[in-house]
Amino acid sequence: MNYDLAANENVRLDDLLVSGLKIFQHKQQFCFSMDAVLLAHFAFLPAQARCADLGTGTGVIAMLLAARGAAKVDALELNPVMAELAARSVAYNHLTEKVTVHEGDLRAVKTIFPSGALHVVVANPPYRPLEHGELSKLDDVAKARHEITANLHDVVQAAKYLLKYRGRFAMVHLPERLAEIITEMREAGIEPKRMQLVHPHSDKPPNMLLIEGIVGGKPGMEILEPLIVYQADGSYTKEIARYYVK
Amino acid sequence: MNYDLAANENVRLDDLLVSGLKIFQHKQQFCFSMDAVLLAHFAFLPAQARCADLGTGTGVIAMLLAARGAAKVDALELNPVMAELAARSVAYNHLTEKVTVHEGDLRAVKTIFPSGALHVVVANPPYRPLEHGELSKLDDVAKARHEITANLHDVVQAAKYLLKYRGRFAMVHLPERLAEIITEMREAGIEPKRMQLVHPHSDKPPNMLLIEGIVGGKPGMEILEPLIVYQADGSYTKEIARYYVK
Repeated sequence: MNYDLAANENVRLDDLLVSGLKIFQHKQQFCFSMDAVLLAHFAFLPAQARCADLGTGTGVIAMLLAARGAAKVDALELNPVMAELAARSVAYNHLTEKVTVHEGDLRAVKTIFPSGALHVVVANPPYRPLEHGELSKLDDVAKARHEITANLHDVVQAAKYLLKYRGRFAMVHLPERLAEIITEMREAGIEPKRMQLVHPHSDKPPNMLLIEGIVGGKPGMEILEPLIVYQADGSYTKEIARYYVK
Repeated sequence: MNYDLAANENVRLDDLLVSGLKIFQHKQQFCFSMDAVLLAHFAFLPAQARCADLGTGTGVIAMLLAARGAAKVDALELNPVMAELAARSVAYNHLTEKVTVHEGDLRAVKTIFPSGALHVVVANPPYRPLEHGELSKLDDVAKARHEITANLHDVVQAAKYLLKYRGRFAMVHLPERLAEIITEMREAGIEPKRMQLVHPHSDKPPNMLLIEGIVGGKPGMEILEPLIVYQADGSYTKEIARYYVK
């Protein structure tokens, strides 16, 4: 890791607004957004949970899981700039005993981690399938949004490899990909058990999907009440505001 | 059909509250509920659509589809008492040219209808898997609620058989069975394309799921805004009230 953050004018230290955490972000890289915050709070965390965050980006989800009480979080990130930033944020927040950032490819998860060792795996993966011919136009930010380096199948298979029997996989994704997500999870033996749709306003379609499955679970899903982001006056609803309190 | 409805004190003529339709219902049989009304309005109806309603019960969905402009609706019902009531309601509403009630088993759909002839198939099927040992306790009403005579797989396979390429299958079901529904539809080549969750109140989990798939459709779902049934004061929301206007 050879990036001099202090000397890099593109790096800023942002307030994570939860548990007093702060986070390094790079102006020309993918910055965390509400998706990550909602996933970190949606995931069920059993006591003393050992966790992984696949494609951790800024590390925001891994750090929030630690703040929520996870015993250990392995945060995997392919992009070396982001892995470095995440590691710096972990150190800045004194979370190195709980959170470890690994630079690596989730498609090679078997060469990085042992199998069947984790209680919880989370992922805020690239959302969009890559259309033919688009690749040459894409920069690092686009790679965090499109399925270039890993697709839905890769992410679910990595989770399956890492999880114990009865372990949980939680993901945030696009609502439009729900059918594919459910198929991939069930084919991996991860039964979808809990889901929540996130709507910008109460009368609008959802723009995010939170879903959690259990390895070896029986069929039968709990679908939660809609999670609404904004009130009519444009301010956050209390359900969202609680995640942004210092 | 040998039931003398006029002489049967268990039969009543109810107002369907839409398009001036009325409907015969039997006090000791399954009576239609909001599920059916919402499905009849949720299903996309192309012009001059030829349709089927699998397990029509009272015939409410078939008649509402006709009122919405369907060219032809074949309404299939296993229970002879219900098939008779549905046929009587169709005649009472002068819909015999558009709606035909067939007494028969959807598991034997291939012996009743030709394949690949329909634009739209709808179903409001029994919702609940049958638990071991429950069967002996169940009456006709219970049979309309539990998967005794046909299960989810049977319903989806019957729809697949009946539909043309690009034809649509719309169903109302329990949210908790979403993962199974998506798996069954995709395995039948019916890609889930549109979905709406129905919530009794805006801050409560959904208690109904409306879902539509297209034969040969590409992956990618539209999830609609939540459909809320009741306002805080207990009255219907305007989205629901519009389906109950005379």
